[in-house]
Amino acid sequence: MSSEKCFAKGSPAPGPVPEGTIRLYSMRFCPFAQRTKLVLNAKGIKHETININLKDKPDWFLEKNPLGLVPTLETPAGEVIYESPITCEYLDEVYPEKKLMPSSPYGKAQQKMMLEHFSKVMPYVRKIQFGRKNGEDVSGLEVELTQTLAKFNEDLVKKKTKFFGGDSITMIDYMMWPFFERLNVFDLQHCLNDMPELKKWTENMSEDSTVKNTTHSLETYKAFYKTYSEGTPNYDYGL
Amino acid sequence: MSSEKCFAKGSPAPGPVPEGTIRLYSMRFCPFAQRTKLVLNAKGIKHETININLKDKPDWFLEKNPLGLVPTLETPAGEVIYESPITCEYLDEVYPEKKLMPSSPYGKAQQKMMLEHFSKVMPYVRKIQFGRKNGEDVSGLEVELTQTLAKFNEDLVKKKTKFFGGDSITMIDYMMWPFFERLNVFDLQHCLNDMPELKKWTENMSEDSTVKNTTHSLETYKAFYKTYSEGTPNYDYGL
Repeated sequence: MSSEKCFAKGSPAPGPVPEGTIRLYSMRFCPFAQRTKLVLNAKGIKHETININLKDKPDWFLEKNPLGLVPTLETPAGEVIYESPITCEYLDEVYPEKKLMPSSPYGKAQQKMMLEHFSKVMPYVRKIQFGRKNGEDVSGLEVELTQTLAKFNEDLVKKKTKFFGGDSITMIDYMMWPFFERLNVFDLQHCLNDMPELKKWTENMSEDSTVKNTTHSLETYKAFYKTYSEGTPNYDYGL
Repeated sequence: MSSEKCFAKGSPAPGPVPEGTIRLYSMRFCPFAQRTKLVLNAKGIKHETININLKDKPDWFLEKNPLGLVPTLETPAGEVIYESPITCEYLDEVYPEKKLMPSSPYGKAQQKMMLEHFSKVMPYVRKIQFGRKNGEDVSGLEVELTQTLAKFNEDLVKKKTKFFGGDSITMIDYMMWPFFERLNVFDLQHCLNDMPELKKWTENMSEDSTVKNTTHSLETYKAFYKTYSEGTPNYDYGL
């Protein structure tokens, strides 16, 4: 695509997905869509991206995915896949080069269970963001977030590996990364103060070329999330 | 196991899982554990079942699964797997006979997306049950439940198949079944009145030998759920 600018209601529908590629419907700052972007990028999958204005969605997008969520994948055959873990597992199965999921059924189950645990971390970031906006005391929430994150630090201590699935990056690292990337954006990095192993993991992750390719500067994130918390998200910020 | 009676705090820990089998930690009336039972049964997997008193869990169970949830699987190697969809996919991968998941990545993604949609149906049954107990008007909830179920009826109309994954039972049918089985238990079968295809699906499902092997009589269910809603669940009811 020649433009990253988002498609809103009334935008012309994109044509069919070209053969030999896959299309990602995304939003440039969405942490869930970032998971799919990380997998597409890590595996070197030829793809195009169409960004969606999530406040004013095109009708043709809602026809493809009635839930109107990103990430959504579309294949040249018109198959539509959504929900971030489902899109990522799909890509890992269809494109066998550089497998990100372990090959053993138990290894896969372990990553899925870890993701299930991690799903309890994610709501805190949003709650803290909106709590602060409303002038609430969020220190209790920050303590809870820290306690939840401590379990992941313990996991790394036990495993003695650089990443959660071993000494190289696997699927679970990419699934969790977008939320850690946002700790800085929301001034929550102090939650990792007593977790040297998890902190080291974030440093190792941020050096990964795939991570570098799918990120924004701290200033850009902060500026976007300011417009977001004000209720008028500027999806095209910085373009 | 010689007894189906549940293990509570203080019960002696079971020994290691015998080679050539797998162990299911369960609760006889749990709809989530029933999913795993259906898959174990449908695939003819040699297993043993240990029922857990969920109100008073043994310490050794919490050591195996700190979340204390059923279903939990344990292998002879001491591997522990929980969360019902994760246990079922694990079993389907490890035991290749009679595959329940489609083999194509898109087919798998479709079943996972359907399960994600279905996860919105499940809370209604509980909400209606407790609303009634508290003497609340649950007619609005029943309308919402009916509207949510209508999407699954439409799906069968479109597909023109007996089951959700084709003309024979696949994983998604077993994942959804335990909740449909409970519509009768909670006098909610009228929600299917205008959905002949979905009603026919429930009839087809209830004729399946695996379903028959993992069910209880309506009277037993009603009696158990009465004790459950009173806050004193009798996990051993009927033994």
